[in-house]
Amino acid sequence: MSKQISFKLEELAKLINGKVVGDTNAVVDNLSAVQNANSSSITFLSNAKYIDLLDNSNASAVVVDINFKEDSRFNYIKCNDPYIAYAQLSKIFKNDSEIKIPSIHKSATISKDAEVHESVYIGPNVYVGPNCKIHSGVEIHANCSLVKDVIVGSHSIIHHGTILGSEGFGYAPSDEGYVKIEQLGGLSIGKNVEIGANCTIDRGALDDTQIHDGVKLDNLVHIAHNVVLGKNSAIAASCAIAGSSIIGENFQMGGLSGVLGHLSICNDVTVGAHTLITKNIEKPGNYVGIMPAQKHQDWAKSSVLIKKLSK
Amino acid sequence: MSKQISFKLEELAKLINGKVVGDTNAVVDNLSAVQNANSSSITFLSNAKYIDLLDNSNASAVVVDINFKEDSRFNYIKCNDPYIAYAQLSKIFKNDSEIKIPSIHKSATISKDAEVHESVYIGPNVYVGPNCKIHSGVEIHANCSLVKDVIVGSHSIIHHGTILGSEGFGYAPSDEGYVKIEQLGGLSIGKNVEIGANCTIDRGALDDTQIHDGVKLDNLVHIAHNVVLGKNSAIAASCAIAGSSIIGENFQMGGLSGVLGHLSICNDVTVGAHTLITKNIEKPGNYVGIMPAQKHQDWAKSSVLIKKLSK
Amino acid sequence: MSKQISFKLEELAKLINGKVVGDTNAVVDNLSAVQNANSSSITFLSNAKYIDLLDNSNASAVVVDINFKEDSRFNYIKCNDPYIAYAQLSKIFKNDSEIKIPSIHKSATISKDAEVHESVYIGPNVYVGPNCKIHSGVEIHANCSLVKDVIVGSHSIIHHGTILGSEGFGYAPSDEGYVKIEQLGGLSIGKNVEIGANCTIDRGALDDTQIHDGVKLDNLVHIAHNVVLGKNSAIAASCAIAGSSIIGENFQMGGLSGVLGHLSICNDVTVGAHTLITKNIEKPGNYVGIMPAQKHQDWAKSSVLIKKLSK
Repeated sequence: MSKQISFKLEELAKLINGKVVGDTNAVVDNLSAVQNANSSSITFLSNAKYIDLLDNSNASAVVVDINFKEDSRFNYIKCNDPYIAYAQLSKIFKNDSEIKIPSIHKSATISKDAEVHESVYIGPNVYVGPNCKIHSGVEIHANCSLVKDVIVGSHSIIHHGTILGSEGFGYAPSDEGYVKIEQLGGLSIGKNVEIGANCTIDRGALDDTQIHDGVKLDNLVHIAHNVVLGKNSAIAASCAIAGSSIIGENFQMGGLSGVLGHLSICNDVTVGAHTLITKNIEKPGNYVGIMPAQKHQDWAKSSVLIKKLSK
Repeated sequence: MSKQISFKLEELAKLINGKVVGDTNAVVDNLSAVQNANSSSITFLSNAKYIDLLDNSNASAVVVDINFKEDSRFNYIKCNDPYIAYAQLSKIFKNDSEIKIPSIHKSATISKDAEVHESVYIGPNVYVGPNCKIHSGVEIHANCSLVKDVIVGSHSIIHHGTILGSEGFGYAPSDEGYVKIEQLGGLSIGKNVEIGANCTIDRGALDDTQIHDGVKLDNLVHIAHNVVLGKNSAIAASCAIAGSSIIGENFQMGGLSGVLGHLSICNDVTVGAHTLITKNIEKPGNYVGIMPAQKHQDWAKSSVLIKKLSK
Repeated sequence: MSKQISFKLEELAKLINGKVVGDTNAVVDNLSAVQNANSSSITFLSNAKYIDLLDNSNASAVVVDINFKEDSRFNYIKCNDPYIAYAQLSKIFKNDSEIKIPSIHKSATISKDAEVHESVYIGPNVYVGPNCKIHSGVEIHANCSLVKDVIVGSHSIIHHGTILGSEGFGYAPSDEGYVKIEQLGGLSIGKNVEIGANCTIDRGALDDTQIHDGVKLDNLVHIAHNVVLGKNSAIAASCAIAGSSIIGENFQMGGLSGVLGHLSICNDVTVGAHTLITKNIEKPGNYVGIMPAQKHQDWAKSSVLIKKLSK
């Protein structure tokens, strides 16, 4: 499927800042998982606990840690961080045809007062509303909507089906039902941000919602109005962050987790999967709130006793 | 970005049913949060606990509660409910250009036997399938799909990327795998309903799924087939309600929560975030089922002990 | 709304492999729920606990279990599994106009190196990217994106707004922030699979993500890269499965639940709603991890005591 590209190991070692142990002239033409490698594959070992998988691998070459005790079964490239080397190799072996050429697909609808840099890629059926500004090198993939007042910083990527700048969920309760609060703020997305597929990020009520540089969101993530999400944070799939929470740098959150609204979370906090944060966090660290899964009959007993705790 | 609109305080006071204390002729041209206000801003104080924020505010005028003890730092508009006043002001300061003019975008696909009122706005790339009926003043934003047999009541708003009338999840298990149950019902959405972005609401299996007047759904909410969701209910992001549950009026649910199928929930029930309702609820009140988040090492201990409870 | 179609009970009994007790010549023209049936309806009783609903039903005929003790109130069709009979009847009474004719909507964007079988239906605003292969009888509904390297097996159905083959969430952490890992694998979907609305299924990092034959996913489900999901598994709405987990056949999972990454789950496992699986599962059975919902004041007490468990 992909265009085959061949490299001598010495070439690759130069590109990933490593050192060949074995045949520097050996040629590889694909990057594979250890167990699926063939005789012209390069693979990698980033975690010592998977070392036994090498026993059945047909790879030509393996990227390993600098301290790995090599043998003669494979050619090796030793480097400081084999996982970063893998990331670099993934780019080298990416098919050229996948690289997005700057263009606006003819089926996209771009508001006349949106500003789109000439180096931007905009895919099929994308809608870009009024007052949006899209900086250089951005990719906005098929079926996304940028509603209004959205700024996307340079080299950020918005994956398919994602909605940016949607209306925040704001109503004032009254005797006659809810009175809608118009959302007058915008959404500001920094540089090198990546937003997964089918996400929703609301624009602010009065001020802007802010997603800072280097943030990475997985698929189906919701970010409410007026959230500030700090630099280099990473959030796994199906999480939700409620309105006006201010979150520090390097925040990480496992899937299906949430943060209540109007909270303040310091830098360097990690939250486990399927956990809800209900209070401010002032100390960096790892926070978890999972109810452990058990066989149904055991859970039923634990569950009754948890309820009894309150009596 | 927005068109500037100027008002004397006495004009605004009339529009929001309040009373000016201070300079009735003072002119404001924008609505801002307390901390970002400038010398021509009007802002509001809806919760006494944020009163200290006024100390550093540059606002010209502040909307406050009728009982607020005013001083000479700002002009004030006193009114019964400053939060409702804020909602009213948000509409006044909304940019005219945001108001959706009745129209069907040329990229939309409307089934020939759908009925669309002439006052409806339908955005880019919307699909409206057979037997849909869309009443007056409705907005259906970009990239939505109304699959089939969907009625949308007047003045309801469907935000971007939402799917209405999707097939319910129905299969009869058999020895040869699942046998699909065709979904023959429809979806009936009342008046003044608002559905967030990237939601999914299934049509019924035999009868209709029903979303009653005044319901508000945030983004990424799922409502399964044959659910009945009572008047003026409000559901936060990333919730899911399973099939055939019948839910009363004024239901409120925090984010990432769920309701199992075939349940009955009375009027005036509030459910916290990240909570699952597994039984019928017959008494109004506030229900919560969150496993508290802790530092990882503490959680690990609690978790072991919860499991031991069952022994 | 639907075309009326009339059947004698003896005709229907033949089609669903049942036996009429009562008037074999009675004519029915619609399939309804017990409580909404009219004098020309056929309905069904698949669970004895709903038997009292028959007291107020106006149905002409009722599909019942072979052991049901019939009376003279209704005509009956007795059969081995009334729920499967209902599924069969739902197909019989489905409006012909709903059947999707093979076609590619003119607003769809199909990559020139995608292979689409002539019997496929592709709806409005669908994007099909490079190296996709879509087999016979597949339906891909409006506003879906198939990003790249996606194979869809015959007679599978992809509902509206779903993203297949999206980029997996892969980054190598470095001192300068995250280094993106290009996703070089594909996504392979088997036969007779059904994927709900607004789902996301990532393609693999190096190998393929695999969804095996007969899998059924509800709406808003996320499947991460390199997951293998076994034959005839069924996953309810708003669930998420993290990367590289290998899941056996007949897996079932309630809504809002998740599976952590790199786990192995045997065949015939059922997981309750709002539960997180954090460990390998080696024994078939029913696993649950719900924190029970309580009145707020009771929950507050339980919650404090759960935290104390760790002291």
